[in-house]
Amino acid sequence: MTDRPMRDDTPDQLHRVDGGITAARGFRAAGVRAGIKKEGLDVALIAADEPASAAAVFTTNKAQAAPIVVSREHLDRSHGVARAIAVNSGCANACTGEPGMATAREMAAITASVVGCPLEHTLIASTGVIGLRLSSEAVERGIVEAGTELSADASTDAATAIMTTDRGPKEAAVRVDTARGTYVIGGMAKGAGMIEPMMATMLGFLTTDARVDPPRLQEALALVSETTFNAITVDGECSTNDSVFLLASGQSGVEIDDAEWPLFLQGLEEVAGTLARDIVRGGEGATKLIAVEISGAESLADARRAAHAIANSPLVKTAVHGCDPNWGRLVAVAGRAGVAFELAKATVRVGPVVLFAHDTVYPDREPDAAAHLRGKDVTIGVDLGTGGMSEATVWTCDLSEEYVQINADYRT
Amino acid sequence: MTDRPMRDDTPDQLHRVDGGITAARGFRAAGVRAGIKKEGLDVALIAADEPASAAAVFTTNKAQAAPIVVSREHLDRSHGVARAIAVNSGCANACTGEPGMATAREMAAITASVVGCPLEHTLIASTGVIGLRLSSEAVERGIVEAGTELSADASTDAATAIMTTDRGPKEAAVRVDTARGTYVIGGMAKGAGMIEPMMATMLGFLTTDARVDPPRLQEALALVSETTFNAITVDGECSTNDSVFLLASGQSGVEIDDAEWPLFLQGLEEVAGTLARDIVRGGEGATKLIAVEISGAESLADARRAAHAIANSPLVKTAVHGCDPNWGRLVAVAGRAGVAFELAKATVRVGPVVLFAHDTVYPDREPDAAAHLRGKDVTIGVDLGTGGMSEATVWTCDLSEEYVQINADYRT
Repeated sequence: MTDRPMRDDTPDQLHRVDGGITAARGFRAAGVRAGIKKEGLDVALIAADEPASAAAVFTTNKAQAAPIVVSREHLDRSHGVARAIAVNSGCANACTGEPGMATAREMAAITASVVGCPLEHTLIASTGVIGLRLSSEAVERGIVEAGTELSADASTDAATAIMTTDRGPKEAAVRVDTARGTYVIGGMAKGAGMIEPMMATMLGFLTTDARVDPPRLQEALALVSETTFNAITVDGECSTNDSVFLLASGQSGVEIDDAEWPLFLQGLEEVAGTLARDIVRGGEGATKLIAVEISGAESLADARRAAHAIANSPLVKTAVHGCDPNWGRLVAVAGRAGVAFELAKATVRVGPVVLFAHDTVYPDREPDAAAHLRGKDVTIGVDLGTGGMSEATVWTCDLSEEYVQINADYRT
Repeated sequence: MTDRPMRDDTPDQLHRVDGGITAARGFRAAGVRAGIKKEGLDVALIAADEPASAAAVFTTNKAQAAPIVVSREHLDRSHGVARAIAVNSGCANACTGEPGMATAREMAAITASVVGCPLEHTLIASTGVIGLRLSSEAVERGIVEAGTELSADASTDAATAIMTTDRGPKEAAVRVDTARGTYVIGGMAKGAGMIEPMMATMLGFLTTDARVDPPRLQEALALVSETTFNAITVDGECSTNDSVFLLASGQSGVEIDDAEWPLFLQGLEEVAGTLARDIVRGGEGATKLIAVEISGAESLADARRAAHAIANSPLVKTAVHGCDPNWGRLVAVAGRAGVAFELAKATVRVGPVVLFAHDTVYPDREPDAAAHLRGKDVTIGVDLGTGGMSEATVWTCDLSEEYVQINADYRT
């Protein structure tokens, strides 16, 4: 699923394992074809055996799609408990007005009926074309069929059914060994690539068999999203449907209390980060994964802001695409990012190669930097020179001619 | 110089005239080759016959180039008076530390000596590669030679000498007829296109023979820059060297008092806006000028923020490049722009064609919208639906494969 090894500082208790959304005990899933997309699986259902703790983070986009409105309502009413998540691809059910809201509510109702749970224990998500009506009949047929195929072995079907034009399904899972026992965190995601016209949405689904109460689960998801799903960017766009869900079945018997909290966060970050980076690798026209590492920032907010500004700069992304260690563009972006920045004390590096530090330029090192950029996983580091200790990393991909072709030429 | 006609609401007193930086009385200019660029003219000098009122706006980038530091100091010390502006292309003199500051001061000193004025009556600007040392010898030789060639007929030489990889010189001028007499506003600019690696800078130079005191001149330049040079974007980048200068010789005898103020602003906006839009037309790989018109915003700040977000969206820019009336992308960007936005009351149009209004989609109109997008000058309109009366327009260009090729492949 990923070619990224676990980091050297990963604790011994974390182990990558096969599988995805059903790797944790207490979850089954299915992926079926309902005829919403032109071809392929397009409806996924995730079901917990018993009511599970549930958490979610949603897009901050003010044009929120109907399924987000419904899922948010249900989580409020259930106080963070869910039994099932129904997902369709091929149609975002966004910008569809009252008829779209009605379809979203029908989608939740049929899910409740199929799984046998209260309406507020259902969550829904949609991804695909904006402004297109979602066929209630098709999506309901899909959910009913998926209900008959729920299985702990069907995680890849589910991961395939949520794809729009992703290059492939994205799954990840870790096993966490603790003194109290072993639990698993798994998940699946689909890409941020708006490859087809108005294709919207990054979606992430995570499950664990750890026992976590809903407020703590929500806190964990919010924290980990900041350094994973919220720390990636393909083109700076944030869609109408972006959502990440996390369910906890508790079936491992391992309770996440204060003692287990740090390790749980690390495990969750490993799964969410792997999925997030896989989304970037699958970005439109992407040929490289770029880690933008900011240090020396006055605040975490500054560090993240500078990292996002560099990661979204077309000049930086095209330079990396061309393997050009163009440090001047990095300085220019850092300077305009609206953060505290001291040019005279700033440092810029490409991979391990420092090209600019304390107002001194090192042009003879550029061949080494260019060699680093010819790899698939590249790193850009900027120290903002403020003397502050805050750091942040954002992952992005390069900007290629293919990105433009994909986004310009679809309907012409 | 521009194919854009004057707007229908332009008052009768404004007339487009030939010429540029020397169209107003009291100014001479020259453009010479000093050998800083590989070929072509690369040093320009603008001289006022007598001390002129002077105003300037500079980049907000925190990595400010040495010439900006020097020009800012001189304007402070002179309280808004200047006799000459020296400009070189081919080297931005940015990120060059103390040696770069020394060269910038030498550049100003030789200008004072050539024109015969106090040091603080000189202004300087540089554009070109970041991080490269500017040869004091070359730039000084150029300024000395330019001093011998100053002429009211050499505006196009000057406009050529400030180019980096602009497609051509950019000049504009208007004559303003008032009851008290006639005055002229003229100018030249160079593009924002960072075509070569680390090529930095949008530069604008404006002159008028109206009589305007320095505080009023600064106010006029600041106001007009907001709707012209600050209302354009090629790729969201703001360089280390961006500067716009405005000198007023007073030789027309027409005093800009409260009565003449509105017309002066309109004339200045016509010249600055023409130059600014020409910069966008000359953007890297640009094939279209896109006007992004925001209405229904709660505040002017919101209107500008939404307009900039749409104008910098790669998804929007690629869609326009492909003549795809992809209104869903406009809604998605407006929703994430961080401004007040009411989806249920929002309207999206492409040219005059409304594609989405009050939660209703009009797919049958898309062919008309696509036809509009096949033109060279296109308009995108979004009403944010808040009921507010604030509006803003930002101009940008489309994003083409050529942009990526230009920015990725230069050194590979």
